Amino acid sequence: MKLELWCIGKTAETYLDEGIDIYRKRINKYVPFEMRIIPDVKVNGKPDAAHLMLQEATLVQKLLSKDDYLITLDERGKTFSSVMFSEQLNRLVQLPYKRIIFLVGGAWGIHDTLKQKAGMMLSLSQMTFSHQMIRLFFTEQLYRAFSILNNEPYHNE
Amino acid sequence: MKLELWCIGKTAETYLDEGIDIYRKRINKYVPFEMRIIPDVKVNGKPDAAHLMLQEATLVQKLLSKDDYLITLDERGKTFSSVMFSEQLNRLVQLPYKRIIFLVGGAWGIHDTLKQKAGMMLSLSQMTFSHQMIRLFFTEQLYRAFSILNNEPYHNE
Repeated sequence: MKLELWCIGKTAETYLDEGIDIYRKRINKYVPFEMRIIPDVKVNGKPDAAHLMLQEATLVQKLLSKDDYLITLDERGKTFSSVMFSEQLNRLVQLPYKRIIFLVGGAWGIHDTLKQKAGMMLSLSQMTFSHQMIRLFFTEQLYRAFSILNNEPYHNE
Repeated sequence: MKLELWCIGKTAETYLDEGIDIYRKRINKYVPFEMRIIPDVKVNGKPDAAHLMLQEATLVQKLLSKDDYLITLDERGKTFSSVMFSEQLNRLVQLPYKRIIFLVGGAWGIHDTLKQKAGMMLSLSQMTFSHQMIRLFFTEQLYRAFSILNNEPYHNE
């Protein structure tokens, strides 16, 4: 079982990359974890959000295989406490999937066609955070989940 | 009216400081906003969390005046969408307080004596994030709130 975080568009801010990298390395001590950047669709002039999201969704679907379990990150998704999320993760990694893919959408979000393919919609917060920043939040939370499952002292209740 | 973010303990990671600073400057275009670091209480040996939190709470209380409105950040607090948070903020800044103080606790959280003084307990997420990282999340969200109130394009629904 491998975990992957897929993001649409490069991280614009190096400070975010730096933080993500710290947690990426820490997660890898528990489970194979990779981050994959899917190029965002560039447009000239005023963007047509629905059209862009559909193009991005098509790119993502080409990369998915039937052995993947897709989780989309979306503020309208299911919310968890960190402990509940770790328990959910623990159940998922025991299922016969090859990869669990966590997908953070682009600036405009995730197209419905992709949401329909997702096994779960996960919300880190009811608040909207930038799709760039959510990458850092997510990697911290994924690391926290494994630290909880392994009874490491990182997480204080 | 001035907004302040009070945090217990220095930010350990420079990448977080870098991000916080970007949003601190952006918020200052809308409203006077400052960040204040309150030194954390150092201990030798095994920490007594309740005792530490009480000592930190005493330090914070000395810095508060009766014209302040205190908001503690706590995952057990009230959750908002970004738009709801901006509306709440809009109401608060019209009240006759001199400062709105947002307080992020130390590694062990915020002592109850201080929570009782708070006008609001605000939760950015049901998930627990490190008290260091929450500083970055909060400044992004505060900037987002002002961008919403000013109809700036930062926030996409």
